[in-house]
Amino acid sequence: MTPQARTIHHIAREQRHLAWDNTIAPVLTIDSGEIVHIDAVEASGGQLGPDSTLENMATLDFAACDPVQGPIYVRDAEPGDTLQIEILELKTADWGWTAVIPGFGLLADEFLEPALKIWRLQDGYAEFTPGIRIPLEPFCGEMGVAPAMPGAFSTIPPAQNGGNIDTKHLTAGSTVYLPVLAPGALFSIGDGHAAQGDGEVCGTAIETPMQITLRLTVRKDLQVPELQYCTAGPLTPRTNTAPYYATTGYSTDLMDAARKAVRNMVDYLGRTYGLSRADAYMLCSVAADLKINEIVDAPNWIVGAYMPTSIFQR
Amino acid sequence: MTPQARTIHHIAREQRHLAWDNTIAPVLTIDSGEIVHIDAVEASGGQLGPDSTLENMATLDFAACDPVQGPIYVRDAEPGDTLQIEILELKTADWGWTAVIPGFGLLADEFLEPALKIWRLQDGYAEFTPGIRIPLEPFCGEMGVAPAMPGAFSTIPPAQNGGNIDTKHLTAGSTVYLPVLAPGALFSIGDGHAAQGDGEVCGTAIETPMQITLRLTVRKDLQVPELQYCTAGPLTPRTNTAPYYATTGYSTDLMDAARKAVRNMVDYLGRTYGLSRADAYMLCSVAADLKINEIVDAPNWIVGAYMPTSIFQR
Repeated sequence: MTPQARTIHHIAREQRHLAWDNTIAPVLTIDSGEIVHIDAVEASGGQLGPDSTLENMATLDFAACDPVQGPIYVRDAEPGDTLQIEILELKTADWGWTAVIPGFGLLADEFLEPALKIWRLQDGYAEFTPGIRIPLEPFCGEMGVAPAMPGAFSTIPPAQNGGNIDTKHLTAGSTVYLPVLAPGALFSIGDGHAAQGDGEVCGTAIETPMQITLRLTVRKDLQVPELQYCTAGPLTPRTNTAPYYATTGYSTDLMDAARKAVRNMVDYLGRTYGLSRADAYMLCSVAADLKINEIVDAPNWIVGAYMPTSIFQR
Repeated sequence: MTPQARTIHHIAREQRHLAWDNTIAPVLTIDSGEIVHIDAVEASGGQLGPDSTLENMATLDFAACDPVQGPIYVRDAEPGDTLQIEILELKTADWGWTAVIPGFGLLADEFLEPALKIWRLQDGYAEFTPGIRIPLEPFCGEMGVAPAMPGAFSTIPPAQNGGNIDTKHLTAGSTVYLPVLAPGALFSIGDGHAAQGDGEVCGTAIETPMQITLRLTVRKDLQVPELQYCTAGPLTPRTNTAPYYATTGYSTDLMDAARKAVRNMVDYLGRTYGLSRADAYMLCSVAADLKINEIVDAPNWIVGAYMPTSIFQR
């Protein structure tokens, strides 16, 4: 995809910040409709690299994780408007990482030890082990605008301003809508993911530096209460090519149901493919999708974890 | 699909029951691996028909809803085994219904009035309004075995025995696994759905009488803690053919996040397609999928409601 526009702005990987805060000075000011190219560091902010080992996990500073590149001030954007973000192009680096970080993730109480997987990304795939490969479907986990409220807010939880939305369907070609909450919108982006399952259950995806090209447009004619988007096309076209194996959890509580579904998938992957529990948990995070199958048959809801069998070559 | 087997057993639409109860006498006893053809009444148990109107909703007896056909005793099935259910063929009737039932559904506090939609099902589609049509992807909302515990349990909530699982991905060609909890498994099935979104948010799908053909096999070599399955192929192949429009909800509570996502989709459908709120809510129930996009970026989770744009012809 070759964006056609008079001006293409650039943001370098050093131009980043670690909080959502409407007093952070913009690194760039653009007109509505202009295109920006961004060189984004991965989620560890450079603490991990292609040669990292489990030892590097011991010194990982969680407070320095999930930086975002920006902010970008868009002229004429006012609170009450909508910021339209067209994701024009996304290019991963040739490596990525996935980790189990103690104290973080859906099954944090059950996975107490750190684990780290360094991936080689090539020919459109990330190989997990021989016979298991994940097609790359890159997107950015972080996308947000400055909040209306004064103060410095963590980049970890998402909120009305977007932020760490970790929504796998925002691949190149998608159009994203966020409410403008502060003058100029003050948009930032980062947290490149080469692939992820719906839920990102172990807390990390295939984390990778990302080259991002996007167009930012102020929409005065549109109001959204929080994140909305139109996807680029059919969902997960590269993995939705064969049957899925699904485990489920039923519970009176959706969180509990999700935990059961993932726990059952970890068991299934161990039994069927001989994966260690940590490997199975990370594979769930990068490839299995959490769906709410039913949420009305009181008092029990069902959450399913869907693993695409297309990733298994054996 | 023409099942090849020596014996095909039959269950008539009168052979049904209204509770999960391991003391209900089986209507059929079969060997493991045999095929059964079932003529299933729809979820109202015959209270609603192709000519029903809103007036019929006033006298709808909710306690008579969600009957299941069976039970089927499978020889040699013992607690601790797994019952494998191969869904060989599913045929809807030529009509179906969707309703807003006061007091029931994800947004029950906001939809206080009953609503009823009668569908004509033909040529593989259900037309909602001119320009909006839903491809039929039939499955059965109810599928379960008798519980281990004595007693009569409602067919509305799903549980370890399966039951009202309302899982849209169990179309013909899928293979379902349920734990055997009582001798003979005592399998029953019903609640035909011509199409449904993940979540079934208004509480009803396109409810339709269903002709079901399935094979039941006792698996002594397999243990499942609760419902698991392998889908027939790629997910929702008839609707996943174009972009999706997604609304989201973020919250510290997944239920609240799901409600926000659906509320935002109802607003979007009203604004974009001019649908009434009740129509938009029912369209969400039969066509929009709820996904847990992230469940780890504490303290806020994101649920997305995904509406396939492929259902809109205009």
